[in-house]
Amino acid sequence: MIRLERLKNRMLQMAKIGGTENNGVTRLALSQEDKKGRDLFVKWMQELKLDVRIDDFGNIYGRKEGTDPRATAVMVGSHLDSVPKGGRFDGVLGVLAGLEVIESLIENNVEHENPIEIVSFTNEEGARFTPQMLGSGAVTNQFSKEYTYSRKDKNNFIFCDELEKIGYLGKEENRLKNVGAFIEFHIEQGPILEMNNKTIGIVEGISGFSWLEVTVIGETNHSGSTPMELRKDALSTTAITIQAIQKWAEEKEDGTVATIGTVRAEPGIINAVPGKVVFTLDVRNGNKEQFNFYMTEIQELIKDCVQRESLNCTIQEIKAHSPVSFASWITNIIEEVSVESKVPYQRITSGAGHDAMYLNTVTDTAMIFVPSIGGKSHCVEEYTPCDDIEKGINILYKTICRILTS
Amino acid sequence: MIRLERLKNRMLQMAKIGGTENNGVTRLALSQEDKKGRDLFVKWMQELKLDVRIDDFGNIYGRKEGTDPRATAVMVGSHLDSVPKGGRFDGVLGVLAGLEVIESLIENNVEHENPIEIVSFTNEEGARFTPQMLGSGAVTNQFSKEYTYSRKDKNNFIFCDELEKIGYLGKEENRLKNVGAFIEFHIEQGPILEMNNKTIGIVEGISGFSWLEVTVIGETNHSGSTPMELRKDALSTTAITIQAIQKWAEEKEDGTVATIGTVRAEPGIINAVPGKVVFTLDVRNGNKEQFNFYMTEIQELIKDCVQRESLNCTIQEIKAHSPVSFASWITNIIEEVSVESKVPYQRITSGAGHDAMYLNTVTDTAMIFVPSIGGKSHCVEEYTPCDDIEKGINILYKTICRILTS
Ligand SMILES: NC(=O)NCCC(=O)O
Ligand SMILES: NC(=O)NCCC(=O)O
Repeated sequence: MIRLERLKNRMLQMAKIGGTENNGVTRLALSQEDKKGRDLFVKWMQELKLDVRIDDFGNIYGRKEGTDPRATAVMVGSHLDSVPKGGRFDGVLGVLAGLEVIESLIENNVEHENPIEIVSFTNEEGARFTPQMLGSGAVTNQFSKEYTYSRKDKNNFIFCDELEKIGYLGKEENRLKNVGAFIEFHIEQGPILEMNNKTIGIVEGISGFSWLEVTVIGETNHSGSTPMELRKDALSTTAITIQAIQKWAEEKEDGTVATIGTVRAEPGIINAVPGKVVFTLDVRNGNKEQFNFYMTEIQELIKDCVQRESLNCTIQEIKAHSPVSFASWITNIIEEVSVESKVPYQRITSGAGHDAMYLNTVTDTAMIFVPSIGGKSHCVEEYTPCDDIEKGINILYKTICRILTS
Repeated sequence: MIRLERLKNRMLQMAKIGGTENNGVTRLALSQEDKKGRDLFVKWMQELKLDVRIDDFGNIYGRKEGTDPRATAVMVGSHLDSVPKGGRFDGVLGVLAGLEVIESLIENNVEHENPIEIVSFTNEEGARFTPQMLGSGAVTNQFSKEYTYSRKDKNNFIFCDELEKIGYLGKEENRLKNVGAFIEFHIEQGPILEMNNKTIGIVEGISGFSWLEVTVIGETNHSGSTPMELRKDALSTTAITIQAIQKWAEEKEDGTVATIGTVRAEPGIINAVPGKVVFTLDVRNGNKEQFNFYMTEIQELIKDCVQRESLNCTIQEIKAHSPVSFASWITNIIEEVSVESKVPYQRITSGAGHDAMYLNTVTDTAMIFVPSIGGKSHCVEEYTPCDDIEKGINILYKTICRILTS
């Protein structure tokens, strides 16, 4: 069993680094706060005598050997960076849960053949350098080294310079080593577990997503002297389209979500009928069979909506990823352990992206979720009860033990 | 009769000052271009031996005395400033039409008792200093001198400093003098006259307007992990509200217009459900009896819409003005003259605000509109055919003659 007090103490120490009002955290990737967080994490790993290494993307690993150093490693971890004014659980919990698992293995003298590794990936949030999950994406060859190194923040600071500046530009030879399984422990960031009174979510996969930018073209006119019936109002058409998109997602009844997160009307003055509107759309769906069909369907729906209003539009895909399915042998072990531990669980698909999405391309992967109260995340209100955390990390611990000793 | 070639020549000279690509004009209030435009206008007035004066808001007047200097003046005019990348007709046409009328009076040796004055008001567009119609509003005591002088542009340049800098800070004693009638000649800036095949619009009044800022408050959530049915999406509710507002205006069938010109979603990132949306609403209606009722009704409708979606909102009035009715004795003369001249006309309410709106508070006022092709204005495509301009200014000329000699 793990020790909650030790974990809580580490959570508190980490939360102080970049701590904001109301228990929030601002620890942007490769900032001075991130450096301090990393230093603390490294210190803790060294105290446990783990073999610490840093790769050329700043991903940090700590390794405890088993009896066979050549056996595949079991890996746990997540990320230590946060969004601006984020919470203290997102990412950090997965890294510190890994530390707790390893410390418990040591404490309980668990013998094992395979090595166990803990990892913290660089810039998961994408809040400072786009895109998200840059460290895990780079180390799994989703992004080239050149692309990754040249990412810039909004002040034009360059990723590789900033990585060097905080002293975490490591070596290429330190990347992932013969990993046989990766498990990411994370808060749900959604309301489902709490709503269903479940302590853990066994994550079977991650929804695919398509991020679109839609431009609706109408005609700019004087707001005072243009009769309603003679307008080609791009915002009016956008309003109709937004409703149609939402109705489409709701009617799927399979967890499909569609979000219009940004909208801009031009010329953008109070007394002009908008001649142009640009909005973004984030559509997600976890069903591998339906995914491509859905993503085509939503684009057709948008075009139809706009054309029916006699306006034009263009649609540009910003980014997309197909749904990801995790390794069933791992989720099955998590389920066995949960049943034996009498911890209420459910199988769930993650709507949010995680480092596990990219790790899944190189090794067998799964995730364990614990509830987010009110579904809140990426804000200072982010909260997961201690009891859920303790039960959740114990499930992780037992799962790791089972994998290591099987 | 007036001389079209002379007018066209002046229009062309003025359009060169601040001229842009595609026959547009950028001549922002109190800019160097505005100074050059004013200088040219003053030179033309001096050539006609008008008595030129500048008031303390930079409004420019030219006076031709009649036989009785103490009689009330008949005044014509508009403004010389433009919006960025505006057209060459908006405002300028009214000022140069006034010059043409006076030159024709001189040329035709028309004898008259009352003085005739021409005026160009400062900062009508409000494109550089808010609010619009600042010069006419100030000189009619709608705005205090202190308020007017302290207006700032977006670079924090102050109105009275800029006025002094271009050499047009005149004297308080030069303000409006015993005016008995004001007629503003202007392009329609809407599509109605062209659509109805009319050469002139006899403007009976100006729509009242209410400018609102509406803030819709929902709940920010993760776009990937928040199911559709658990969202409090402020943008979704805004989309529903926009459609309801437009339906409301359309169903009035009395020329009521409602425009959502700006919209901003917060936090404004692609992968967050917007927890807050701020949008502006510009509602206009020309019916004095209905105006207040309508403006209350639309606010209630917005609140109902938002509440029905279980969200909250606040509504703030930015600016409002009741409908304005012009002097029927002047519109009746314009109509007589139009009938006699066999010029196709219609009575019309202006949806756009004009200096005439404020002049109407101190003297009997009316306006004459000429068609805007395609209803276009505040853009380089702004255009009015020469034939309409000639016929329109002749109606203005005959109207002025009738007033001066009656
Ligand atoms: N876990 C998480 O918040 N990821 C952000 C990327 C996304 O899913 O939009
Ligand atoms: N004439 C004109 O464009 N006025 C601008 C003010 C308005 O009506 O919105």
